[in-house]
Amino acid sequence: MEVRASAPAKVILFGEHFVVYGEPAIVLAIDKRAHVRARLREDQSIYINSPNLRLSGFFRGDHFEPERGGKDAHRQLEPIKIAAQKVLEVSEEKVGVDIEVSSQIPVSAGLGSSAAVAAAVAASVGQILDIELSKKQIYDIALEAERFVHGTPSGIDPAISTYGGVLLFHKGKRFMPLDVDMEIPLLIGDTGVARSTGDLVATVRETLKRYPSIISPIIKAGGKLTHRAVEALKSNDLQTLGELMNINHAMLCAIGVSSEPLERLVYAARKVGALGAKLTGAGGGGCMIALCPQDKLKQVAEAIERVGGTAFIARKTDDGVRIEH
Amino acid sequence: MEVRASAPAKVILFGEHFVVYGEPAIVLAIDKRAHVRARLREDQSIYINSPNLRLSGFFRGDHFEPERGGKDAHRQLEPIKIAAQKVLEVSEEKVGVDIEVSSQIPVSAGLGSSAAVAAAVAASVGQILDIELSKKQIYDIALEAERFVHGTPSGIDPAISTYGGVLLFHKGKRFMPLDVDMEIPLLIGDTGVARSTGDLVATVRETLKRYPSIISPIIKAGGKLTHRAVEALKSNDLQTLGELMNINHAMLCAIGVSSEPLERLVYAARKVGALGAKLTGAGGGGCMIALCPQDKLKQVAEAIERVGGTAFIARKTDDGVRIEH
Repeated sequence: MEVRASAPAKVILFGEHFVVYGEPAIVLAIDKRAHVRARLREDQSIYINSPNLRLSGFFRGDHFEPERGGKDAHRQLEPIKIAAQKVLEVSEEKVGVDIEVSSQIPVSAGLGSSAAVAAAVAASVGQILDIELSKKQIYDIALEAERFVHGTPSGIDPAISTYGGVLLFHKGKRFMPLDVDMEIPLLIGDTGVARSTGDLVATVRETLKRYPSIISPIIKAGGKLTHRAVEALKSNDLQTLGELMNINHAMLCAIGVSSEPLERLVYAARKVGALGAKLTGAGGGGCMIALCPQDKLKQVAEAIERVGGTAFIARKTDDGVRIEH
Repeated sequence: MEVRASAPAKVILFGEHFVVYGEPAIVLAIDKRAHVRARLREDQSIYINSPNLRLSGFFRGDHFEPERGGKDAHRQLEPIKIAAQKVLEVSEEKVGVDIEVSSQIPVSAGLGSSAAVAAAVAASVGQILDIELSKKQIYDIALEAERFVHGTPSGIDPAISTYGGVLLFHKGKRFMPLDVDMEIPLLIGDTGVARSTGDLVATVRETLKRYPSIISPIIKAGGKLTHRAVEALKSNDLQTLGELMNINHAMLCAIGVSSEPLERLVYAARKVGALGAKLTGAGGGGCMIALCPQDKLKQVAEAIERVGGTAFIARKTDDGVRIEH
């Protein structure tokens, strides 16, 4: 028997970085999903295969046995093992699992790929072991896996992959679903430039320390902006959302997390009719998002690709982690 | 007999736009000058010739007689006439003047070309009429001429063209010289894109009105930034000045006055080693400035030109308006 599960990627619409300093952020689940297939094994090992990443290997107790990808495989597959392990621990059966991951989500791009995989792993392994896992339990397991990846994860990624929709996020892992009716037609532009979230968070901390009287009011204004964006989301006001995205982007520039490739994509998108455009996530490289009128999606995508980005359309999804039948 | 006078162009180092809302700005006189030659005329008319602008004509009482440039000549030469006229009014002699203007300052680029010309006109006409004009009188006359150009000028341009050096500017035309020892090696990059200062000031006002709780703290933080920059200038700290320029630029993006051509020049300069780069003046198009280590000036200039700008080196000058011998 095989069980399939999937969970969505995310984009941060507003408030990244500022959330570290207690301001709220708005996160959106998008219709790019991580897919996982789980099968029971007779032995108690966990076999993980990720054809996308060309990595596979066996976890047998504390020992890892790479099949493809060597040491790199260990580091990258460990969070998946953690998620599976946590579910196996709940069960009393002395079994193992085969896990196959296939994801539509670009990795290391700030789109929450690892959390989506972890949530889907938890759901699929739970189902095949016949354990009723609540969403809260799946969230907790995905958060546990994220700890391996990020050290002190904000909890944003596991939450949105688990619950879907739109979440208003506060520090201390408090989040609240936002009831958003409207379509939010987004283009995601990937710069293809790798960046380290940890380094960028450290850059902001350093800048704030050097110039507290300048940077602190910007961070606080970022919080006001997110609250204003909640109003705009509730009143289906795409125009205002776009304007707020542009202002939010500039604030992220002020705290030092934009980069030349990001600016190139952001201005290319605005030039051909995006209502607003901003970097999303940690910055430095990674992805930007552009809010587009439906009839401009194609043009904006082309503009992003012309200046060296990879563009894809992303739509809000209300479907969090789910079993696929 | 002929008298020659000159006055410097300016760049705003910090605080443009925010100054409209009561925050301070720092302005720098640069070694690009407007040059004026004045000769007495027997009749009471004012003849103005600007070979650069290909404009010339006679002002006889209230009547304008174009020689080159037609109606456009009238509008563009009028402020020069106003400056000359004001000095003639002080004198009791029944004479006129011939004025020839030749300027190294790009026009309509936010570098204060018109105020520099007006200050040099006042000084040269004063000298040829043998009137001892104080700097304060020259400033007042140049400000009067600026009123024709800008409606309600801030007074920044006439002040810096008259006094030179570095000025800390407050709303209500209050300014204070800053004693700055160090070299401030700047590159100016001209986008070549025309913009209207009035439109951009109106854009900011509109944005502030729509999002007061977001934009107002940014403007106030802009004031803090300018004060921090004064400290950096006094302690010869180029590194900090550069960082503050980058933050100031982002704040100007947040209030909506940057543009794609400006971003292109700004990021090109930063990429090859500028310590900081920002738009200067009204934004939208016009010029940006890059603070460069001496050994990087050439590289940064080339980078700016590669992405479509016109670059020139500008150095701080302490020489305000002066008679040339």
